Amino acid sequence: MEKNHILIIKIKDKKWLIHKITGVLYKNSLNIISNWVFVDDESWNFFLRAEIIWSLDKDKIKYELNNILWRNVIIKINSTWKKDIIILATKEIHCLWDLLISNYRWELNANIKAIISNYSDLEKISNKFNIPFHFVSSDNLTRKKHEEKIQEKIKLYNPDIIVLAKYMRILEGSILKNYKRKIINIHHSFLPAFIWANPYKQAYNRWVKIIWATAHIVTKDLDEWPIIYQWVKEIDHTYNSWNKLQKEWKNIEKYVLSKALNLMLEDRVFIQWNKTIIL
Amino acid sequence: MEKNHILIIKIKDKKWLIHKITGVLYKNSLNIISNWVFVDDESWNFFLRAEIIWSLDKDKIKYELNNILWRNVIIKINSTWKKDIIILATKEIHCLWDLLISNYRWELNANIKAIISNYSDLEKISNKFNIPFHFVSSDNLTRKKHEEKIQEKIKLYNPDIIVLAKYMRILEGSILKNYKRKIINIHHSFLPAFIWANPYKQAYNRWVKIIWATAHIVTKDLDEWPIIYQWVKEIDHTYNSWNKLQKEWKNIEKYVLSKALNLMLEDRVFIQWNKTIIL
Amino acid sequence: MEKNHILIIKIKDKKWLIHKITGVLYKNSLNIISNWVFVDDESWNFFLRAEIIWSLDKDKIKYELNNILWRNVIIKINSTWKKDIIILATKEIHCLWDLLISNYRWELNANIKAIISNYSDLEKISNKFNIPFHFVSSDNLTRKKHEEKIQEKIKLYNPDIIVLAKYMRILEGSILKNYKRKIINIHHSFLPAFIWANPYKQAYNRWVKIIWATAHIVTKDLDEWPIIYQWVKEIDHTYNSWNKLQKEWKNIEKYVLSKALNLMLEDRVFIQWNKTIIL
Amino acid sequence: MEKNHILIIKIKDKKWLIHKITGVLYKNSLNIISNWVFVDDESWNFFLRAEIIWSLDKDKIKYELNNILWRNVIIKINSTWKKDIIILATKEIHCLWDLLISNYRWELNANIKAIISNYSDLEKISNKFNIPFHFVSSDNLTRKKHEEKIQEKIKLYNPDIIVLAKYMRILEGSILKNYKRKIINIHHSFLPAFIWANPYKQAYNRWVKIIWATAHIVTKDLDEWPIIYQWVKEIDHTYNSWNKLQKEWKNIEKYVLSKALNLMLEDRVFIQWNKTIIL
Repeated sequence: MEKNHILIIKIKDKKWLIHKITGVLYKNSLNIISNWVFVDDESWNFFLRAEIIWSLDKDKIKYELNNILWRNVIIKINSTWKKDIIILATKEIHCLWDLLISNYRWELNANIKAIISNYSDLEKISNKFNIPFHFVSSDNLTRKKHEEKIQEKIKLYNPDIIVLAKYMRILEGSILKNYKRKIINIHHSFLPAFIWANPYKQAYNRWVKIIWATAHIVTKDLDEWPIIYQWVKEIDHTYNSWNKLQKEWKNIEKYVLSKALNLMLEDRVFIQWNKTIIL
Repeated sequence: MEKNHILIIKIKDKKWLIHKITGVLYKNSLNIISNWVFVDDESWNFFLRAEIIWSLDKDKIKYELNNILWRNVIIKINSTWKKDIIILATKEIHCLWDLLISNYRWELNANIKAIISNYSDLEKISNKFNIPFHFVSSDNLTRKKHEEKIQEKIKLYNPDIIVLAKYMRILEGSILKNYKRKIINIHHSFLPAFIWANPYKQAYNRWVKIIWATAHIVTKDLDEWPIIYQWVKEIDHTYNSWNKLQKEWKNIEKYVLSKALNLMLEDRVFIQWNKTIIL
Repeated sequence: MEKNHILIIKIKDKKWLIHKITGVLYKNSLNIISNWVFVDDESWNFFLRAEIIWSLDKDKIKYELNNILWRNVIIKINSTWKKDIIILATKEIHCLWDLLISNYRWELNANIKAIISNYSDLEKISNKFNIPFHFVSSDNLTRKKHEEKIQEKIKLYNPDIIVLAKYMRILEGSILKNYKRKIINIHHSFLPAFIWANPYKQAYNRWVKIIWATAHIVTKDLDEWPIIYQWVKEIDHTYNSWNKLQKEWKNIEKYVLSKALNLMLEDRVFIQWNKTIIL
Repeated sequence: MEKNHILIIKIKDKKWLIHKITGVLYKNSLNIISNWVFVDDESWNFFLRAEIIWSLDKDKIKYELNNILWRNVIIKINSTWKKDIIILATKEIHCLWDLLISNYRWELNANIKAIISNYSDLEKISNKFNIPFHFVSSDNLTRKKHEEKIQEKIKLYNPDIIVLAKYMRILEGSILKNYKRKIINIHHSFLPAFIWANPYKQAYNRWVKIIWATAHIVTKDLDEWPIIYQWVKEIDHTYNSWNKLQKEWKNIEKYVLSKALNLMLEDRVFIQWNKTIIL
């Protein structure tokens, strides 16, 4: 794995893009072992994800690609090495624990650099896994001030991805700008529905036959969150208490968040406005 | 199958209900081969569904059960013979066709007595299966008047269940009273969400990763429809046109409606306010 | 859709294949709107499926591609027009009917040219849909002789794909050679298990919790059938009769066959020895 | 929950069993809040699972039930308190860890009394959760002798259920007799198929489209293991290495084992020969 790279390109579709792009790789003696191209025939956006073997000079390749690809292009070249991630959580343990264990079992292609929380409850768990834990209380702080303090901690680690693992506060300030398209969240809504109201309560009051969760990119406007992954689970009338319902709901939440994080780690998530393409 | 009966009881929970109920069966020399009891420990409603073998005098049993079960009890005894159903449809064929074929293959425990539609498009299909078709145009009719004409046709057949198989008009008048808890519908919402807005459009605009359908009992208040069955299907960004999306959505709709109808035919659907218990 | 083409290439991986292939398209002024490349890093086989827009001269393109791609390459260019298919069936109706209806509803990108059967039971259904039906009895015929007569009928239509929709005889002769990798079948085994023994019986005797079906390419050696698609359905102990079990099993069979046929129609099924890659 | 009890009865079906059984409860002033009866109409075995509220004298109730239920009856009355379990494991951590975390999060209705292993690898994990760990090496021991030493450790805790969480040795001696129908195992086969051969290898060699796991009751004859729960997961050709395949397979294994254990803890698993009924 270690010498492979993922080339990511997003651009307005033009003719013969693939031939031109692979021409740059050809000149640099690079070979492609997997390649997905999707052109959205509504927007005519062109998305490419290619896995390239052998070492390369990222800046040189990017420079040459830029030269042939005109304006408004997004080009990224990520190595398939582990990405650095930061986890934000509050009090609930299920999603955090799931990620810590995947990591312990070498099944998460990431370095968990730190856990940051507005409560201290999860410190004990972090310690079991020897992950730095930062408790940033929001007591007597404005939302803006608290977010700044959180961001100071994040900056220590320069993460590739920030995972909100049941972090129960809304992010809205400069953190969203500084880590644009790098923050993912798990939400118990079934986007685009159930955002504002209490989804647990709505499900409980009507004995729905299916419960759900959505993992999404965090953006400023809640109504515009791009959806990365959603899943559901069948339930029945015997889930007639909050306790039973939430136990099952937590299982979906941890599964959906883990799945979405893996898609991010593999550079599979492309964004077009408020939508995603998963290549 | 033919001599079996399904006994249905709904009542506020009291002590020793099962012993008392089975006492009536004992005195009448009836045996139970399956029995589900669910007591909702929130409402303390008691729900019983029992399958009884050997022939019985329904009225006598109901009379004796009523004598021991005090007030506010619902008692039904249905034979496991085929139920009579009427299908209402408009122009779309997928749900109707699915039911007609299940019936043709002897897999639907029902007699489809007639198909009623506000358009004539589906008549040709009905004829292929030799099912009476009634075209009841709504041209120049008020909603109320049209519904009355539909009801006249329904009355000819005295159905046990009315299936709205993509019938695209809202029922609101006496038909709901006369066939209370006997009308089921398939809806492309994910109840309790997406009722009022256009669910297809919302899904399409955000490239959701899952699409859905809900089958429910039709009641006057759309916000209160008791949910019988829901299911979903995973999709991805390649469903980037209405055509692809709707083709897949139709497959879910027909599956969910068929599943819900079968639950109704087996007398498994109990209603508590705006919720269902499936026994 | 009509002017698009699907380019299919299978070859031993060499350097810069994509650049060279797209170079041929470039010279011919053809544009790619979707492109999947998969290199199996065990076998180092390279598989490409690209969707190309605008009209082209298939023979010219294939000639030019052959010139640059050396030996042992498989190149196909299929238009995205409907493919011609022939359905072979015996007496069971569920898979056949599912395909006929998909076709009627314009949801199958195929022309069903004819239905061929060793029994006459399904003729009535074929007639409902105005599809030619050929009854080829096997009475008093050797297996070889019968297969030849079947093949005579198939030859009338020169099909792209032959679908065995519960055709209950084993094909083994020249038909497998003449329509190599073009014949698909639905089997109630869970390949590679349960081939030889009776899968229904094994499931029934042990009250398995899941039942299954497999769609596969038909090859001479039953143990080598490449798997196209498999799916399962959860069941429980209430499926305690053959009748209940088979009703549910038929639903899986028709779903799995339909799914596999659609993959074939979209030129997504690549074969590597006894395995498939679905691009 | 604490004062509830689960009454379990298995007997050859006789007339009016439910009335007679509930008569005993009636005389003892006990009320039923849920009740499932299933009569297998092939074997005419009668299975009852009832949840009873209020405290009771187990021995008295069992005595009275025995008096009216003739011979060959199995009667159990379990409180809904936590059951005591022992986990046997070898080196693999995924199933063990999943159970330890469920337990830590108060989501497993059980006391994990101890972990026993033929290797010492998992001791560190056990310590993280303060669960007693017994390392019972099999070095220089016959299979029989090793099993006896394992059993000595088990006896210390008198468990209600023994969970084989990837315990990689076959049990065959007195342990199976002493804990009959109390030992559950997770197996990567798809019972009744793939028992003897290497299921991972078979799946890998053919690029199956679905992988699977089975949880079952451990009995002497491997071909007769009663199946408690099975589940599957869809995969594709990109799982083209042992590593990727096993990572996914482990997720199914832990899910299936956890599900089966919960069914056991809720006294829902009934056994009829080599089959199970889940009530």
